[in-house]
Amino acid sequence: MEVHERVFEIALNRLFFYPSNEIYEARAGFYDYGPVGIRIKRNIERLWREVFIEEEDAYEVSSAVVTPEIVLQASGHVDEFTDPLLECAHCHYKVRADKIVEELEGKAWNGDMEELREKLKGFKCRRCGKEAGSNIYKSNLMFSTAIGYDGDKAYLRPETAQGIFTSFDRNFKSLGATLPIAIGQVGRSFRNEISPRRGLIRLREFHQMELEYFMDPQKQEHKNFEKLKDVKMAFMHRGANEVVEETPSTLVEKEVCSGVFAYFLAKEWLFMKRVGLDVKRMWFRHLEEGETPHYSGGNIDLEVETSYGIVEVAGNAYRKDYDLSRHAQFSKKNLSVKEEDGREFIPHVFEVSIGLERTLFSMLEHTFVEKGERKWAWFRFTHEIAPYMVALYPLLSNNEEIVKMAKKVREELKGKLPLYYREKGSIGRRYAKADEIGIPYAITVDHESLEDGTVTIRDRDSGEQVRVAVEDIVERIMKSGVAGEVIDGRKG
Amino acid sequence: MEVHERVFEIALNRLFFYPSNEIYEARAGFYDYGPVGIRIKRNIERLWREVFIEEEDAYEVSSAVVTPEIVLQASGHVDEFTDPLLECAHCHYKVRADKIVEELEGKAWNGDMEELREKLKGFKCRRCGKEAGSNIYKSNLMFSTAIGYDGDKAYLRPETAQGIFTSFDRNFKSLGATLPIAIGQVGRSFRNEISPRRGLIRLREFHQMELEYFMDPQKQEHKNFEKLKDVKMAFMHRGANEVVEETPSTLVEKEVCSGVFAYFLAKEWLFMKRVGLDVKRMWFRHLEEGETPHYSGGNIDLEVETSYGIVEVAGNAYRKDYDLSRHAQFSKKNLSVKEEDGREFIPHVFEVSIGLERTLFSMLEHTFVEKGERKWAWFRFTHEIAPYMVALYPLLSNNEEIVKMAKKVREELKGKLPLYYREKGSIGRRYAKADEIGIPYAITVDHESLEDGTVTIRDRDSGEQVRVAVEDIVERIMKSGVAGEVIDGRKG
Repeated sequence: MEVHERVFEIALNRLFFYPSNEIYEARAGFYDYGPVGIRIKRNIERLWREVFIEEEDAYEVSSAVVTPEIVLQASGHVDEFTDPLLECAHCHYKVRADKIVEELEGKAWNGDMEELREKLKGFKCRRCGKEAGSNIYKSNLMFSTAIGYDGDKAYLRPETAQGIFTSFDRNFKSLGATLPIAIGQVGRSFRNEISPRRGLIRLREFHQMELEYFMDPQKQEHKNFEKLKDVKMAFMHRGANEVVEETPSTLVEKEVCSGVFAYFLAKEWLFMKRVGLDVKRMWFRHLEEGETPHYSGGNIDLEVETSYGIVEVAGNAYRKDYDLSRHAQFSKKNLSVKEEDGREFIPHVFEVSIGLERTLFSMLEHTFVEKGERKWAWFRFTHEIAPYMVALYPLLSNNEEIVKMAKKVREELKGKLPLYYREKGSIGRRYAKADEIGIPYAITVDHESLEDGTVTIRDRDSGEQVRVAVEDIVERIMKSGVAGEVIDGRKG
Repeated sequence: MEVHERVFEIALNRLFFYPSNEIYEARAGFYDYGPVGIRIKRNIERLWREVFIEEEDAYEVSSAVVTPEIVLQASGHVDEFTDPLLECAHCHYKVRADKIVEELEGKAWNGDMEELREKLKGFKCRRCGKEAGSNIYKSNLMFSTAIGYDGDKAYLRPETAQGIFTSFDRNFKSLGATLPIAIGQVGRSFRNEISPRRGLIRLREFHQMELEYFMDPQKQEHKNFEKLKDVKMAFMHRGANEVVEETPSTLVEKEVCSGVFAYFLAKEWLFMKRVGLDVKRMWFRHLEEGETPHYSGGNIDLEVETSYGIVEVAGNAYRKDYDLSRHAQFSKKNLSVKEEDGREFIPHVFEVSIGLERTLFSMLEHTFVEKGERKWAWFRFTHEIAPYMVALYPLLSNNEEIVKMAKKVREELKGKLPLYYREKGSIGRRYAKADEIGIPYAITVDHESLEDGTVTIRDRDSGEQVRVAVEDIVERIMKSGVAGEVIDGRKG
């Protein structure tokens, strides 16, 4: 089994996530969060909010999912957000034309529709075996719907960013009308993928955490640049095949990107580290010119190594004034701002767009610990991300006194430490369960507890145990910055 | 202006919410949350999670929005979730047929389509003036879409509940397979309303907070019933026009509902009070038999008085085994559970379904304080719901020393108290702004601060001020259970 299969097995059994509506024939590309997974997801969101909203004095909004067509015409999604489909002339079976050519030639399609038709001449349909013909057309990747009974055409938003752009004018003016200003959003996005696959990597319904930083194009420094200027990050330059070490300072010196851009790369790097990604398996890659959209002043992706191969987990882009200009044009509203020196311009935008499920899935793989001495596999979640901080167990479920005390301890800890409680099963199996859910500490109430009011705290990562008085539990655990510290002060 | 108009004016200006994509012609029934509103919304969600998930040892899930048709056929939404539309034979203008009859007769439609056709014979179209004819048909209220390029029919979920039912089997088994078990969800739901109106009351895209309590039908007591049995609630019995006082105890005694049902009514009552609703303007109403769905063993709504009239803010229903039975039937899966005594049955469900936006809007009206001596209107938000706990202002924005100290205080408070900071404008206008956002306390740094390290804390509700040392701010404010306590220990 590959790593992602082993991870998925635990994720399903331990209710991280599971296919949506799975009692029916489940549709590919949709997953629900289960009771454990939703807690992990909320912790990732909370951390994002702390790092990208609170620390930045940024603003958060939450916009509608159902989006009128004109908004997505302006953003370019109606015309450009497509895949080329080849529909068989005989049996009408549809395949991704670009993927076929890619398979045949071993390189990515260059975007030319005529070339696709040329290259697929004589192609035999994979279903009926007859010549498929040349009916290749662009199929939009958005879910379409209609508003009201007159059927005003609309789509489910393919990204959360557009809601930030279309409300920029109102927010900017009400918030003091001075640049720079950063506005972010966490929310669901939808893409009607032709072939959803690779678990949480290519989904039809997913979550994004996006921050749009609106600025004067002449002022692309960040006020907190100094704080992060020396953060070391793995970086793959344009045209390079190797990862080298860079910092915000060196990136700006080498004129790879602006101060704002470099600053947010460092933020993202530190954020992913706190989420639990292995820094040795991730790097930034400066997209080649051919990969960069025409309106962009540069894109740098965060790429992560997983058992599915390299995955783009976050995209960082200098979108210039593209989005606001298009919305100004389509809405016929003036979206320019006036600076104190009299200059009037449409703000430029730097965007940090993080895929929540891709972050989560990469994190699961990177914190995964294979079966070894312990006989079960488990997750080394960071304290900030772990769904529960402690598992609490009475040693024996049939000893009334012990169960009673365990329940008292439970009441004691409730609201202070995120708590997982179970009575049944052997203590070994319950430890295994706690580890599988990635809970940093397991507390056991036993016979000794009844005598002296102490419990054992077991460390998830080392398996070591210490005895602690009930009244000291919270302090001992809250002080532990990383797993292990409760036991002997080690730093993980 | 009516109260909701005045509330809306502040809500728009202060970025609580605004029409989605408003730079384009905004579509009715869609609102975005702005930077202030999203904080209030998250506080309501947090409180719901505390009360309905954490306190209950319940589980939370998060299911997909895009839902295959069969799921909603099973739930009855495809067939039943409709409005009757009359389409004009001449100009094809569409109107809600039931609303027309309701206007004409002053009472609600009884559900008989033939009767509608009969009553609207000769009805003149409101657009073209010609006889509209009798083309009356049921129009489904769900947003429809299609999955993949083969167009597998799907809808945007009309409620979050179904995702809890379709994943019940997996969750139940993995969570220990013992009843009762409660599973909840907060999330977006979608209804393609014919005529969205009344601000946040009838939306096309909104949020629900739903809890499904799965139980053995023979055991409808709640283990914590004793704790809430004496909570006093306003209640309107079947057939009654008046509100009387009831408690969970009296409701069970009078056999109005089960212990579980009565317990959750009390929880909901206390929850709404903490959100900030005025208990004098809300009551439970036991729906008449004719209003109760055929599969339900009773519905009790939480009704709230607003300037739009009476609004149903929450629905509480004993859904029996309707949903799981239907899903068992449509999915051909066995969804029954086996109890220790050998009985095998499909669990019964009690549901608490709260509309987030309706709760929010009612709360805005109920905490709204009209212009009076203060010359501006404002909100008396509870501490748990207020978007920020303190506003922090340097008295003068052009005094460098004061601004510098204010920024230091800001750094000091960051991460400890949700903080709103502004430099510009007269202090009076900034106080007005803090009040309009419903911030309980405003802290001002002035000349005296530079000398003795104290600041003033102004109480939103009384307008009174006290001087406090910077290092004591957090303790003074965190200890205040309600607005006012920082000043003189009053309870609000």
